[in-house]
Amino acid sequence: MSNLWKIVQEKYSPELNRRYETIFTLANGYRGLRGFNEFSQIDERGNFIAGVFDKAAAPVCELVNCPDPIDIRFFVDNEVCDLDCLPVNHFKRYLDIRAGTLNTEIEVEIKKKKLEIKTQRFVSRNDVHRWTAEYCIRPINFSGKITVESMIDGDVTNGSYDPSNRIRHYQVKERVDLKPGLAMQVFTIDNNIEIVESSLITCDRSDEQFINSRKYKEYGDVIGEVCDLFVTKGESYSICKYGVTFTSRECKGNVLNSAKNNLEKFTEDGFECEKKSHQSVWDNIWAMSDIEIEGDDKAQRGIRYNIFQMSSSAYEKDPCVSIAAKALHGEGYKGHVFWDTEIYLLPFFIYTYPEVARALLLYRYNTLAGARKNAELHHCRGARFPWESASDGVEETPKWKADSKGNVVRIWTGDEQYHISADIAYAYYEYNRAVRDELFLKQYGAEIFLDTALFWQSRVEYNKAEDRYEINKVIGPDEFHLHVNNNVYTNYLAKWNLRKASEIAAWLENKDSEFYKKLLKKLKIRKEDIAGWTKITEKIYIPMSKNSKLIEQFEGYFNRKDFVVSEYENNGMPVWPEGVDKDHPDETQLLKQPDVVMLLLVLGEEFDLETKKTNYEYYEKRCMHKSSLSPSMYSIMGLKVGDTRNAYKYFIKTVYTDLEDNQGNAAKGLHVASNGGSWQCAVFGFGGMSIDQNEILNFNPWLPDVWSRLSYKIIWRGYRLNVDVFSDKIVFLSEADISIKVSFKEYKIKKNERKEVKLTGKIKED
Amino acid sequence: MSNLWKIVQEKYSPELNRRYETIFTLANGYRGLRGFNEFSQIDERGNFIAGVFDKAAAPVCELVNCPDPIDIRFFVDNEVCDLDCLPVNHFKRYLDIRAGTLNTEIEVEIKKKKLEIKTQRFVSRNDVHRWTAEYCIRPINFSGKITVESMIDGDVTNGSYDPSNRIRHYQVKERVDLKPGLAMQVFTIDNNIEIVESSLITCDRSDEQFINSRKYKEYGDVIGEVCDLFVTKGESYSICKYGVTFTSRECKGNVLNSAKNNLEKFTEDGFECEKKSHQSVWDNIWAMSDIEIEGDDKAQRGIRYNIFQMSSSAYEKDPCVSIAAKALHGEGYKGHVFWDTEIYLLPFFIYTYPEVARALLLYRYNTLAGARKNAELHHCRGARFPWESASDGVEETPKWKADSKGNVVRIWTGDEQYHISADIAYAYYEYNRAVRDELFLKQYGAEIFLDTALFWQSRVEYNKAEDRYEINKVIGPDEFHLHVNNNVYTNYLAKWNLRKASEIAAWLENKDSEFYKKLLKKLKIRKEDIAGWTKITEKIYIPMSKNSKLIEQFEGYFNRKDFVVSEYENNGMPVWPEGVDKDHPDETQLLKQPDVVMLLLVLGEEFDLETKKTNYEYYEKRCMHKSSLSPSMYSIMGLKVGDTRNAYKYFIKTVYTDLEDNQGNAAKGLHVASNGGSWQCAVFGFGGMSIDQNEILNFNPWLPDVWSRLSYKIIWRGYRLNVDVFSDKIVFLSEADISIKVSFKEYKIKKNERKEVKLTGKIKED
Repeated sequence: MSNLWKIVQEKYSPELNRRYETIFTLANGYRGLRGFNEFSQIDERGNFIAGVFDKAAAPVCELVNCPDPIDIRFFVDNEVCDLDCLPVNHFKRYLDIRAGTLNTEIEVEIKKKKLEIKTQRFVSRNDVHRWTAEYCIRPINFSGKITVESMIDGDVTNGSYDPSNRIRHYQVKERVDLKPGLAMQVFTIDNNIEIVESSLITCDRSDEQFINSRKYKEYGDVIGEVCDLFVTKGESYSICKYGVTFTSRECKGNVLNSAKNNLEKFTEDGFECEKKSHQSVWDNIWAMSDIEIEGDDKAQRGIRYNIFQMSSSAYEKDPCVSIAAKALHGEGYKGHVFWDTEIYLLPFFIYTYPEVARALLLYRYNTLAGARKNAELHHCRGARFPWESASDGVEETPKWKADSKGNVVRIWTGDEQYHISADIAYAYYEYNRAVRDELFLKQYGAEIFLDTALFWQSRVEYNKAEDRYEINKVIGPDEFHLHVNNNVYTNYLAKWNLRKASEIAAWLENKDSEFYKKLLKKLKIRKEDIAGWTKITEKIYIPMSKNSKLIEQFEGYFNRKDFVVSEYENNGMPVWPEGVDKDHPDETQLLKQPDVVMLLLVLGEEFDLETKKTNYEYYEKRCMHKSSLSPSMYSIMGLKVGDTRNAYKYFIKTVYTDLEDNQGNAAKGLHVASNGGSWQCAVFGFGGMSIDQNEILNFNPWLPDVWSRLSYKIIWRGYRLNVDVFSDKIVFLSEADISIKVSFKEYKIKKNERKEVKLTGKIKED
Repeated sequence: MSNLWKIVQEKYSPELNRRYETIFTLANGYRGLRGFNEFSQIDERGNFIAGVFDKAAAPVCELVNCPDPIDIRFFVDNEVCDLDCLPVNHFKRYLDIRAGTLNTEIEVEIKKKKLEIKTQRFVSRNDVHRWTAEYCIRPINFSGKITVESMIDGDVTNGSYDPSNRIRHYQVKERVDLKPGLAMQVFTIDNNIEIVESSLITCDRSDEQFINSRKYKEYGDVIGEVCDLFVTKGESYSICKYGVTFTSRECKGNVLNSAKNNLEKFTEDGFECEKKSHQSVWDNIWAMSDIEIEGDDKAQRGIRYNIFQMSSSAYEKDPCVSIAAKALHGEGYKGHVFWDTEIYLLPFFIYTYPEVARALLLYRYNTLAGARKNAELHHCRGARFPWESASDGVEETPKWKADSKGNVVRIWTGDEQYHISADIAYAYYEYNRAVRDELFLKQYGAEIFLDTALFWQSRVEYNKAEDRYEINKVIGPDEFHLHVNNNVYTNYLAKWNLRKASEIAAWLENKDSEFYKKLLKKLKIRKEDIAGWTKITEKIYIPMSKNSKLIEQFEGYFNRKDFVVSEYENNGMPVWPEGVDKDHPDETQLLKQPDVVMLLLVLGEEFDLETKKTNYEYYEKRCMHKSSLSPSMYSIMGLKVGDTRNAYKYFIKTVYTDLEDNQGNAAKGLHVASNGGSWQCAVFGFGGMSIDQNEILNFNPWLPDVWSRLSYKIIWRGYRLNVDVFSDKIVFLSEADISIKVSFKEYKIKKNERKEVKLTGKIKED
């Protein structure tokens, strides 16, 4: 297999164990298992099951770190095989992205005895309850006893790295000896969610002796089975650990029995059989989502890694969960869902796996009750989606944190970062634009639009003196500036939200007036409310520069101290301009991340090129990129306005956020939004795809010098479109007849016919 | 302080953590705390309380590894201070032997933040229930948050290195938040021994903030208290962890309250106060036991280390415990007591700290009931002390073990290594010879002598054909040869045992006939029994060579294949002679360890020089030294017979058994018997002290070239005698008038008067 499908760790360094645990996480949407290296005890292992949240004595509700099912140890004559205290003759670990497996090869010396272990682990996409690991062990220069200790570890806590807030979110109820096999039944503290981890080890040889030597072990909340294997020099032995997980969230019957029965079946099926099924699911995912970049191995491997982890973070069958800021890959941000999902991640799913996009959207629909509670708490109507969301849509942003001196500091994002409600409405719009799923729009989207519009209606303030509507005391996407008035991103999205809601109301009334009436009644929306929305959209305040198309990020922004970035660190990131008080960036015009530029990207079709250019030029040099959400967006907008200077640099920065640990906190979980940013860069940026006001697909690609070919696929209204970009041409293959534009010129593409369009020179809008 | 009192580890290597845990164990006779490095998770930590044994599901009764009270972690901005995954700028660990403290100095970098921590830990000899550790922390280049997490870890098991037999020997009952402070109450499985570990952390500065931030934590069977400290760059902060332990063995009241009250008092007293009291106990120990070796720093440091760990392994107040083969320093040999204590260790205590020797002897007296049961099981009368002893004197030697192919192998030492019963009687004799404690002999010793004699009487077999008594199917000290008949060490010691028992019987009858009669009645000994003992001593078979004074190790030994050691490994240890089947050394005359030579040492006064010489010469070159008990004895005997070739080499080998891990298993606990061997080498070997048949102290010293002076002290019949050996003279200082012999010439030494005796040339017997 080509190394363009592999993420390799060539050298063992215990200080990187935690980072690689994130990078090597295997997930399937149902659950994530951090890439715990079972030959070391230096870890921050994690077993996260989507939707299993608990608060108990923690400051906020958090994604539960469940009992660890992976733990396994190998002993040679009772000396444990531990990379941290043995000579390591060989070490290699790699993620096989194509196959969805994590592979480890080690050779260690235990008192002169050389032992080789090759392992392969996967978290099944065929049956999401299943995971497994195979250990091929070979005693190189000795014969003797190898003991295998397989455990389920119920001592796992959340916050192992944060002693003050460390907490175990479950209580162990049953410890079951399955003879052979283990099962542990635990219940979460607050909501009594039942979780069962079960596992079993087998050996392909000496099986009778192996099984006869088996002992069941219980140490408090850790259970284990221990087997001895008497090995002969030079021969190979295969040990398999099979794991099955069920929870009461998805299993309405007896959870323990479900796990036991599935485990029995799994062991019968065997490792290879499940692997085959697992890989055929990945075959399908890659068939639709792979992006090829020829001439640039680093970019090629990187973008595939990004797609792999995004694809691993969700699946289509659970409409009550969404993708957290760190996905299922770590405890950072407590497993909470932010706007990242709708704005950064959703496009990937909409265009490659719409069923997953639909499930992610439904998560918001299914948490409307919480969103309504949030609105009520803020004395508003309708639905106010939380800045940080867990299982029920209630605001989960912590209110306080401690600074480095121990002072308590108020966190305001949960109170003021309103724009997320419009972002969610926008996501429903974007999905429908690409998928044309009117039934979905009617059944779920309409309610989201109307209820968020209602929220905005109740949230705007009428300024009589100026005869305008305002939204004051907010935080926009740029989090350097708190408590600002009339943030343009927020106001514009609110306006858009209200306008679209009116349109959808009209559409729905026309389509099914009965349904429409019922919906209005349910949401307590009166006709006058809807009439009012139009008035607000007309009069909501959008701060602008007086003399140009320059948009003012918020009211008074231009009065803040002006600094411009002129220096860059070795890693390409901006240096704070001289004279800035870093503790008070809010006093300046410097940005943490795009805000106006974000608006111009999200609602790109509403703005002309000059506006985009003017604002990109102004804001780009004032952005400090202090969020991993930032570089990708400037990359895309730069390409749109013809500034290709930073496009590649920012793309690579985004693609390698975790692989190179650009943010220094990869250990705490995946920056999954930047995975989405990477995909958008590739498709919307270099790939040049956009949708114009007539909902026609446009292509204005641009390739970095080293790229000889960029190939991607999208699904547009149910049909697949392959796009192959070369330096001088673009080639299409569509499953349906379709009209598209290349460099603003229209072309007809015939179903299943290869269509080649020449590209002439630098790509530019007219 | 001079580095002659320090054992230093200069470089951190995680693979040596377990070995240094043994080397750096701190013990006080009541308990041993392995030298767990709290800045690493690579460990085999151990908290052993003398006398706390449990079997439960283990193959044999074992010394319980109790909950770990030491565990503490330091976090800088939530990054744990872990030597295994951080850059270590400075590392040094050392045992201060003089003061009885374990000291660690580290400087680590946590995300560029440099943190220095200097710690000092001691296990109090003033109040054996107390231990403490001080942590002086200094943020070198940063100000910020340091979090301290102090724990009591109830997840500790025995056999963490042996998964098949790993077991937790207690159940946690109460987890107590002392606000501040922690207490954990556990009970052993079988005997319900209650153990309470309690601890509390304090900070010398920012105390209010420290205490206010305190959180109590419970994770299953681990409890903790977590405090935040906001530190200023360059300043120093001192954190103290105080620990107090009580068990129901020694505490008849409320164990938990005893711990709590003592902990409260301890915290009031403070670290420095307890340290002072602790050190004054050590002052006294060193005043009596220190050995000075001038001109050889390695030997000097080494012998002090040996004395330190022996002294740490016992104390005078508990007559129901003794010193295990691995002392309180590790799980090796399950905390069982062997003949090592009586034959290797006891002389040190007899001559430097007779109160401890007395307690160790009483342990055997207090386990007589078990010894009687053992005799009964073997269809014998009297007391048959167990080869491996735990709390009650019942045989604890495992019957089976698995070999490297998984085959079950029978262990015979518990069935056949009878000589221990005579060794114990001998120990009572040796104690009384030096201490002259007739009351003790009457109250305890007599019963031991009579009951072991009774055992021998019932164990010997009369061979009518040869008209002799035999002891067949035994293992002597040399464990290469099993099931042998008439092992000379065993037979000779049994003979001696019977003879001494007769003498003591006569003495006791004369002294207190009432007491004597009662004793005979209690032991069911008839007059005829005692008469029979004389007959046995006269006719017990001692195999000898026909033509010389060469003693035959056992009947038929000379018929085994004869191999002689001629090659030595780099480390000075013998190489197996060519042609030997290493799996069957019993077919040869090769020895694991001294057997005949051992007899000539133990009962030295009974054999002439020629016998010693003849046998030393024969057996020395047939000994493989496969036991750490071996080299020291050949060193001493070599010196006695004028073969100084190996004396120094074997001495250093013995002294450095654990410090240089000569046996490769220092991790599993101290080879404490070799500590005793080292002391005997120094005093009985180089120091040349012996006791002749008239019970006169003899001195025939010999110094290695590099030694300019050897100085030691002994207590002889209640008075202290200082002995200073130089190359040309020997200097005495005695607390009482005493006659001694130097080079077989008698000298009178006057009380408190320095007496110098010239040494002329090579020291030799006439």
